[in-house]
Amino acid sequence: MDNLLIVKIGGNIIDNESSLLNFLQAFAATNGEKILIHGGGKMATQLAAQMNLPQKMVDGRRITDAESLKVVTMVYAGYLNKKITALLQAMKCHALGCSGVDADLIRAHKREAAAVDYGFAGDVDSINSEWLCHLLRKDITPVIAPITHDGHGQLLNTNADTIAQEIAQAMSMYYSTTLVYAFEKQGVLENISDENTLIRRLTPEVFAQLKQEEKIFAGMLPKLDNAFAALRLGVHKIIIGPAEQLTALLNGQTGTHITHDN
Amino acid sequence: MDNLLIVKIGGNIIDNESSLLNFLQAFAATNGEKILIHGGGKMATQLAAQMNLPQKMVDGRRITDAESLKVVTMVYAGYLNKKITALLQAMKCHALGCSGVDADLIRAHKREAAAVDYGFAGDVDSINSEWLCHLLRKDITPVIAPITHDGHGQLLNTNADTIAQEIAQAMSMYYSTTLVYAFEKQGVLENISDENTLIRRLTPEVFAQLKQEEKIFAGMLPKLDNAFAALRLGVHKIIIGPAEQLTALLNGQTGTHITHDN
Repeated sequence: MDNLLIVKIGGNIIDNESSLLNFLQAFAATNGEKILIHGGGKMATQLAAQMNLPQKMVDGRRITDAESLKVVTMVYAGYLNKKITALLQAMKCHALGCSGVDADLIRAHKREAAAVDYGFAGDVDSINSEWLCHLLRKDITPVIAPITHDGHGQLLNTNADTIAQEIAQAMSMYYSTTLVYAFEKQGVLENISDENTLIRRLTPEVFAQLKQEEKIFAGMLPKLDNAFAALRLGVHKIIIGPAEQLTALLNGQTGTHITHDN
Repeated sequence: MDNLLIVKIGGNIIDNESSLLNFLQAFAATNGEKILIHGGGKMATQLAAQMNLPQKMVDGRRITDAESLKVVTMVYAGYLNKKITALLQAMKCHALGCSGVDADLIRAHKREAAAVDYGFAGDVDSINSEWLCHLLRKDITPVIAPITHDGHGQLLNTNADTIAQEIAQAMSMYYSTTLVYAFEKQGVLENISDENTLIRRLTPEVFAQLKQEEKIFAGMLPKLDNAFAALRLGVHKIIIGPAEQLTALLNGQTGTHITHDN
């Protein structure tokens, strides 16, 4: 099986022009087939404020009403997706910016209103992995914004971490896949305020133990649950670490590396 | 040579939800390979107003400063492109929304500042027609927003009529291409306020004559100059007419039909 690199970059990297450029240069320079998934950063919140739209957040998650859906579609699938793609093209990485709508890449359904009604938030149903394989074989690097659709004309806002996990799982049928969650931290920390408490290696056993001992910062648990779900479903390796050190991350010199065994 | 249909829809159609749906249904139902190019409509102007951005217009053309470029990229390549693509997907038309940035589809350069500095306005240099052919052969319908790039990381705002013309010319190497400019009018009118003065057929000779006699509404001349340039450079036929009557337009029952000879 060929190798495939899937990188998800988080909001703080996107908000910082020089961090973004550094990351994109390292990403463009990696050999082999790759996919980039990007989140949104602060721009959507700023735009909504500038438009005088009230922003509803519950537990740090955006409630996507109809107007917020327009805002995130404009910012994620519009400005950020095209800006990143144009920068990669300038770095000789043959990038294709798209969302989950395009070529029916990511089908989702509107999350049922339970205790919290998240509005137009989409949970992933299927990934058009055949189309991704086709693009990769043509040396095209997909750059994916986290907007999906339901197949009936409705756009949906979907968590970028989850999209990265779902795509990595789907692509593991065809590739030995490494999934990188690249953000502004050094990796998974025992103590969020101390970068020296970086956990270098995690296996399902070690994770279960650390979780039980409450030695992992609670804010990292959703990302880690995503990561271990991906591992169970065929992803070869998950790396969590600093976007600005992509090469060191891939070399195993930094970040948290998650595999089945040591 | 196989037939290719290229349709450009104008702003007024996009602004009207039911007109847009009617048009998209007819477009999705056409047989054979096709490309859709869309303009922007009023949403960019409305968003800029909502954001309190001053809009500079000269002779009805937007001056694209850095903030306006963000706005048009968000609206054209973001919201409108994804909305149209999701609607086509729901109509079983396998659409791929993109801009000129994606897969290096449309390379442009920033227009030199002359009498008027249009800001980040791009004039087209090249079309990646090989990529378009590839998509069409896979039964994918490209849906193209009029944002281009310069190959050095700069996004540019480009006139959608011109993009339609350039793509039609480039694709005429591979296909017998029909280019439709679909908008809210009946077609080319001798008298803009009288829909009964529709000119049904135009050839280069008739156009030259009518132009000389000043029998064509001046506002239509840029679109017609585009159309005749496309005809000279290999496009089989250009049709100008109402977006809501696409089937009748293609059947020759309405609109203005532009060909080399009667």
